[in-house]
Amino acid sequence: MRSFVSPVEDYLQELHKEFAALKDGQIATYIPELAKASPDWFGICLVTAGGAVYEVGDYLQPFTIQSISKPFVYGLALEDNGRATVLTKVGVEPTGDAFNSISLDSGTGRPRNPMINAGAIASAGLIAGKTRLGKLRRLLETFARYAGRELSLDEAVYRSESETGHRNRAIGHMLRNFDILDSDPTQTVELYFQQCSISVTCRDLAMMAATLANRGVNPVTGKQAIRGEYVESVLSVMESCGMYDYAGEWIYNIGMPAKSGVAGGVIAVLPGQLGIGVFSPRLDSRGNSVRGIAVCQALARHLDLHVLNWPRVGQTSLRLLFTAAQMTSSRVRTIEEARLLAEAGSRIRVWQLQGNLTFASLEPLVRDAVERFDDYHYLLLDFKRALTLTESACRLLYRLLQKLTEPGKFLLFVNVGHLPALRRYMRAKLGTRISELLRTYDDHDLALEWCENHLLSTLLRGGLPDLRSSPQDYELFAHLSAKELSMIAPRLKRRSFPQGAVIVRVGDQARELFFLAHGKVSVMVPMNSGIPKRLATFSAGMAFGEMALLDGSPRAASIIADTDVECDLLGLDDFEALGASHPGIKIKLLENLCLSLTRKLRKSNRDLSVFE
Amino acid sequence: MRSFVSPVEDYLQELHKEFAALKDGQIATYIPELAKASPDWFGICLVTAGGAVYEVGDYLQPFTIQSISKPFVYGLALEDNGRATVLTKVGVEPTGDAFNSISLDSGTGRPRNPMINAGAIASAGLIAGKTRLGKLRRLLETFARYAGRELSLDEAVYRSESETGHRNRAIGHMLRNFDILDSDPTQTVELYFQQCSISVTCRDLAMMAATLANRGVNPVTGKQAIRGEYVESVLSVMESCGMYDYAGEWIYNIGMPAKSGVAGGVIAVLPGQLGIGVFSPRLDSRGNSVRGIAVCQALARHLDLHVLNWPRVGQTSLRLLFTAAQMTSSRVRTIEEARLLAEAGSRIRVWQLQGNLTFASLEPLVRDAVERFDDYHYLLLDFKRALTLTESACRLLYRLLQKLTEPGKFLLFVNVGHLPALRRYMRAKLGTRISELLRTYDDHDLALEWCENHLLSTLLRGGLPDLRSSPQDYELFAHLSAKELSMIAPRLKRRSFPQGAVIVRVGDQARELFFLAHGKVSVMVPMNSGIPKRLATFSAGMAFGEMALLDGSPRAASIIADTDVECDLLGLDDFEALGASHPGIKIKLLENLCLSLTRKLRKSNRDLSVFE
Repeated sequence: MRSFVSPVEDYLQELHKEFAALKDGQIATYIPELAKASPDWFGICLVTAGGAVYEVGDYLQPFTIQSISKPFVYGLALEDNGRATVLTKVGVEPTGDAFNSISLDSGTGRPRNPMINAGAIASAGLIAGKTRLGKLRRLLETFARYAGRELSLDEAVYRSESETGHRNRAIGHMLRNFDILDSDPTQTVELYFQQCSISVTCRDLAMMAATLANRGVNPVTGKQAIRGEYVESVLSVMESCGMYDYAGEWIYNIGMPAKSGVAGGVIAVLPGQLGIGVFSPRLDSRGNSVRGIAVCQALARHLDLHVLNWPRVGQTSLRLLFTAAQMTSSRVRTIEEARLLAEAGSRIRVWQLQGNLTFASLEPLVRDAVERFDDYHYLLLDFKRALTLTESACRLLYRLLQKLTEPGKFLLFVNVGHLPALRRYMRAKLGTRISELLRTYDDHDLALEWCENHLLSTLLRGGLPDLRSSPQDYELFAHLSAKELSMIAPRLKRRSFPQGAVIVRVGDQARELFFLAHGKVSVMVPMNSGIPKRLATFSAGMAFGEMALLDGSPRAASIIADTDVECDLLGLDDFEALGASHPGIKIKLLENLCLSLTRKLRKSNRDLSVFE
Repeated sequence: MRSFVSPVEDYLQELHKEFAALKDGQIATYIPELAKASPDWFGICLVTAGGAVYEVGDYLQPFTIQSISKPFVYGLALEDNGRATVLTKVGVEPTGDAFNSISLDSGTGRPRNPMINAGAIASAGLIAGKTRLGKLRRLLETFARYAGRELSLDEAVYRSESETGHRNRAIGHMLRNFDILDSDPTQTVELYFQQCSISVTCRDLAMMAATLANRGVNPVTGKQAIRGEYVESVLSVMESCGMYDYAGEWIYNIGMPAKSGVAGGVIAVLPGQLGIGVFSPRLDSRGNSVRGIAVCQALARHLDLHVLNWPRVGQTSLRLLFTAAQMTSSRVRTIEEARLLAEAGSRIRVWQLQGNLTFASLEPLVRDAVERFDDYHYLLLDFKRALTLTESACRLLYRLLQKLTEPGKFLLFVNVGHLPALRRYMRAKLGTRISELLRTYDDHDLALEWCENHLLSTLLRGGLPDLRSSPQDYELFAHLSAKELSMIAPRLKRRSFPQGAVIVRVGDQARELFFLAHGKVSVMVPMNSGIPKRLATFSAGMAFGEMALLDGSPRAASIIADTDVECDLLGLDDFEALGASHPGIKIKLLENLCLSLTRKLRKSNRDLSVFE
């Protein structure tokens, strides 16, 4: 049980209480079965595009979906026939007329939009399927994916609609006359009566609306109810024609694509944010739920939900910008390498991206890349925190790649595994040259190290130094005299490890200090994800394994041989005994150790400051 | 000079080239002066809500604004009269009719919307001012704020419009007849002719559109052209009525609020993202620029600019979530305190927020706060990276504060200085109790330390330990025998510093190691912002100043006395001499120093891992 009630739910409770007092309007009676509803039923449900559900009142009371079915059937017609074909059969212009107006284009007989009955019947005629039953089944399956549960017909309402639906039958025949319907119109009109008679709850409506807000994917089940590319078309007709002759005022005051039904339901969609379902059967003279509209209006005002009311998105894609002069990879560098990177590291520019990447949110990055063009040679884009990516973002990144590759600069894409659209786009553009032109990495740190190594090898004429060292070059032996060296060297034990070997294992008791004579090793810590993370990489001449030795704690990380490796080991006992036998040596070793720790601590603190 | 051309500009160049080939349509001739335009003029300009400008073609060619003035004048009418008054004079419903249709509501004579001429003339009649000249001046000043430069009339076009504007004069008298205009209609119609004759360029139009995209603030000059609250009203009428009888199709295909003028200009606005200006004088039969519409259509398709096409915003406000068990403040803790914080630190929950805070983007945070209610006692919200904040976000945060304060939990707001609306909202709600109920901090680190101290004082029955220590308790003297202590104690020199004193200054040569006997000191580094940042705070028993001592570099940070302070100083020479005179002591000191550095390095690495 939850310990306290969400403030969002509190808010909906207050809203419900406030508008329960609103008793204006009349229940629809033109379909006799609808007249049986209780005028006091009142439910509000709000579902976010992330799948959170907030609901109050009669949110589980079933009622029939009625005209709210229209946008969803229109969406299915788009999927079944494509946009072009559908547009020849149903227009997208608002009529300024009432919901049951016939409003056909003169000459072609094309209904002006899919939200009036004529356009909805034409849409129903476009649903693929051989039989009416087959079409109804597909339609129910689609609605079920939107709602996240099985739905069924309210047979009593369906019979009642069918018995009294003469005007809609007339529309059907008129549409057949103009060849907008191409088969028996009575069957299509029956299908239309059935779609209107699907039984839903207020929660179902909010979930269906949230599925539209989430680009066609039900945010709770994760199932696709409509292809993302058609969502904006469905929302467009809801925006321009959804509230009948109320459309202009609706956009002005509320601004969310919406649809109402005569049983008292209303849905509203704020793309990317949330879906709203309200149910209250008393209707105004235009056939819209009185409380439904009042609640949408209050929600829009209180929650800033107007679709044209967006804060600036620029800069929202930038999580972090830094250069290798500010933060380097976890490859531990020699003093000389560290100096070169501090000097020339600004040639490596790193962008950590986040959130939803669109043209507008990436544009500031591209601008930076243009303005700083002469300053960098490597541009590393880390997509780890990017949530989504539009095609326009792919196009911009592709153009950037072209621009940078031409003069020989490097663009690296890191952590793009969760954005398959980016790889697909690049493959379509680059073809077989993709592996040559597009550098992708699954690990930020390795990508950064690649840039550093490439930069260092151009700065150090002879390339990176050799991976071989001997005791007189060991950093921890700095300032030891030849005599002192000759005292300590015999105590070192040479060990070889093949590439991939585990040199030190997490949890082991620390028994020795390692001096790396040849090769590279990496310190790896286990992560929750299961993929170990690299903490540091050492090369020849460096020491490792000193931290656990110092504080006596078990090894906190594993150390793996990145290459074939040779190490000189100094046992803990030998190290401790030095204090009595050769205090001068021990003092120099400890001083060097302090220095090495100090350098590492300074780097960590510098790295941390980048995140401030 | 820029080294290379932005890919965005390349793209606009290609677009310009592609649509320059489109020669359909006719120049407007009904105003004789407009017929003098070159049919081949063609400019495209795109201005982001962040102020970046991209432009190609004839973007500096002047032409008259014509009907594109209508939404801006409507906005000024809203500012001058308020929404309610304006709505009594001009409606907001699309007409489905052509631009010069009269379309007055029967009975009231109210024009159906401000984008048809009748509604635009009614809007011009609502501009505040005593004389026509005064009104024109205000109008030009307003337009200048939108465009970011002075604008003036094209007198030749104005005379031409005035000489031929009989239909508009008729409309003026009709509006006077219905009391929609309350003074001499001929003056208002002249003002309308003048507003249509303002000379602009394609760049001006894009800048004006970007100002609407940026909630009324010109993104380059930073000047407010219209109050933010009216922007959505202006955009709403552009969305529903901006493209005359094309409105439904426009929303369906392009989906941005837009407006065209008969001189060949078109603007389109994507709220929060960008403004578009296109100029090409050839018009289609509806009076819209042929290339203007084609370019908007291509931009919308290529750049995913549809206003109903938004990726999910949930989670986009969360930059980082951690607890004090994962990362603590820079207050250096004793081993015991560190152990307690590692154990119980999850009682302190920290959210770093980012980007635009709206109801939908904050809702996941509030959900987390509800679901984890029993797990934490302190909730710290850091707004440093938050860009904007809506009123709905304030409301949600206020409700959260109420919910947490009631059972005695703490909600801390950090870095809210740049979000005055939040403080205003809280003050309005909390009144004089604000200082008691709302804990605000300007420094994340201090806020986190406050939580830690409060938590530790409840865990340690006797409260935090005393701020006084003596040499036998100094951490660096651990494991020294009484004899060894008595050897070293005489070499310590006691110094006192009053609160606020600078104990160590950046750049100084390091000459001593400090042992803190009494009080607290903080290590502060200078930041680019000018406000020094705290790196660490030490309390009695701890040593500081060792890093510069070890590697001989100048002091990298200043050290300030947070309280009255007493220190024991060990001179560098004394420290070094110990090696010869008392190597055993020196070894223990160095070992303790290594241990202390190791602990600090472990903490830094742990802190860094939180940012992964």
